[in-house]
Amino acid sequence: MDKPKLVHDGAKAPSGSDPCFEEEIAALRAHIERRLGELFPNRISSDLNAAIAHGLLSPGKRLRPLITLFACRQCGGDALEAIDAACAVEMVHAASLIVDDLPCMDNAQLRRNGEATHVAFGEGIGILAAIALVNEAFATISKMQQAEYRQRIIAIEKLSNAIGVNGLAAGQERDLSRNGDAPKGGIGEIEKSHLEKTGALFASAAGIGAVLAGARTVEIDAMERFGAALGLAYQTFDDVIDAQCDETETGKDAGQDEKRTTVVTMLGADSANKSAEEWIFTAIKEAEKVDCGAGSPLTGLARLIEQKFSKMMRKS
Amino acid sequence: MDKPKLVHDGAKAPSGSDPCFEEEIAALRAHIERRLGELFPNRISSDLNAAIAHGLLSPGKRLRPLITLFACRQCGGDALEAIDAACAVEMVHAASLIVDDLPCMDNAQLRRNGEATHVAFGEGIGILAAIALVNEAFATISKMQQAEYRQRIIAIEKLSNAIGVNGLAAGQERDLSRNGDAPKGGIGEIEKSHLEKTGALFASAAGIGAVLAGARTVEIDAMERFGAALGLAYQTFDDVIDAQCDETETGKDAGQDEKRTTVVTMLGADSANKSAEEWIFTAIKEAEKVDCGAGSPLTGLARLIEQKFSKMMRKS
Repeated sequence: MDKPKLVHDGAKAPSGSDPCFEEEIAALRAHIERRLGELFPNRISSDLNAAIAHGLLSPGKRLRPLITLFACRQCGGDALEAIDAACAVEMVHAASLIVDDLPCMDNAQLRRNGEATHVAFGEGIGILAAIALVNEAFATISKMQQAEYRQRIIAIEKLSNAIGVNGLAAGQERDLSRNGDAPKGGIGEIEKSHLEKTGALFASAAGIGAVLAGARTVEIDAMERFGAALGLAYQTFDDVIDAQCDETETGKDAGQDEKRTTVVTMLGADSANKSAEEWIFTAIKEAEKVDCGAGSPLTGLARLIEQKFSKMMRKS
Repeated sequence: MDKPKLVHDGAKAPSGSDPCFEEEIAALRAHIERRLGELFPNRISSDLNAAIAHGLLSPGKRLRPLITLFACRQCGGDALEAIDAACAVEMVHAASLIVDDLPCMDNAQLRRNGEATHVAFGEGIGILAAIALVNEAFATISKMQQAEYRQRIIAIEKLSNAIGVNGLAAGQERDLSRNGDAPKGGIGEIEKSHLEKTGALFASAAGIGAVLAGARTVEIDAMERFGAALGLAYQTFDDVIDAQCDETETGKDAGQDEKRTTVVTMLGADSANKSAEEWIFTAIKEAEKVDCGAGSPLTGLARLIEQKFSKMMRKS
């Protein structure tokens, strides 16, 4: 596999608007797309394989795998050594989108500018595809020949933390049980939900990248706190956008939040936005605790996310 | 943890009707129950945790974890060193039962002499519980301090083989897509479905036990072939029973097979039964390839299964 040009190795943290940094992200994203396609060729041999490919290979930002690659580099590793783990993180994300969209969950019809997987393949196949994706994520990490057995086991443990009763499944349950009502725990409960639904996988994505770079525990911990804070920022920004945009801009069903209490309905858009910016600030502080001479690509990523959301907000 | 009395260590393979062997199974089953309860305390803190406990801790035969423990012993290991992996195998089985029973799959109401999990907790929570159980299975193996990192990774790989596009998900998809029609591939396709839905997890259960005993590849392979053959026998016997019994005897919705083609509707009950017995014979031949001086508890288990099914058939 060709290595992308490492524009920022040894350089200062890139600002989000640096065109070189955007080029680098595009190059890494191309690596992710290619590797996902290798790991899950778009097989039409069965509906199950086709549904998996539909959920996984539809165009996406690949933000979570980028976090894994950049965390690996920020901790002194070669980003591409973590490519399979990055793809595993994206498999879990794709599974969570399929599950969230199901008729018995959000009952969403649109996802990633196309049909939701259960709309395209039926509910049963959608559920099986989600489970197969979670399974394949663990299988993919277990097969990473380039990593030590110990590193693979820690990565698997970190990934599992993001999925189950303290992660994605718990966050989705919280949404189900609230059924649109205001959370009894107020804004703190909404942040807990953001942590479960977004922060946990962002944190694992970053922690796994650090583990594969051979980072020390103190660095791995900082990377995980970076991921959690970035996840909170991301989900808060996303709620603001969802309240303002139509689906041509987000590529998914808009106004899903109208029927439920969000950080925006509780705080108002301005305060929600300010809260998101504070989480970006926290994330950057954590990222900058790790300096292995590779600059801070994660700082650049956090700034880029902030700018992209600001731009979407100004447009709407 | 107290060790159960290892009645058959160093002895000849027990026959299925040996009362000591049945006692031994009961003792190991008690260990499995206790450890499952420790790994997943019956927390009422959330519907998700309660649904997981409902799916996992309802009374079951614990056949798959017993295979793991006996395979470990048959390969010269201490059965209880594999207890956490055995519990992980049961978690995957419990998840598969929840998924199979969903309204968009078999739409079954009864399971293990009680309500199906989706009936008790709703469809959304049922799906999340199934995913959390699969996740927890991998997490549990990743945390097995008593095993080497390498052994844990191989066990995780073997478990993943049983779940995804070559295992449980594929088998369930095959059932969905046939929608009751006769399989185009005839009896061979039915056996493939049995392999995916039952044989794959039986094979992984046995292979994982062998890996944790430190067995050689040739032994691990024989254990996996044992598991696959026993799974085929089991599923064929089960189809015969399902065609004959009512739910008071099986503890689940009976007559589910009336609407679809099974090995019984294709071959008739007598030939199906004979086919199952041949698979038992194959399983025993594979089991007896491994002789580490611990007798062949897996032979005893295969015989016991054959006898239990024969008894159920005579009763009905």
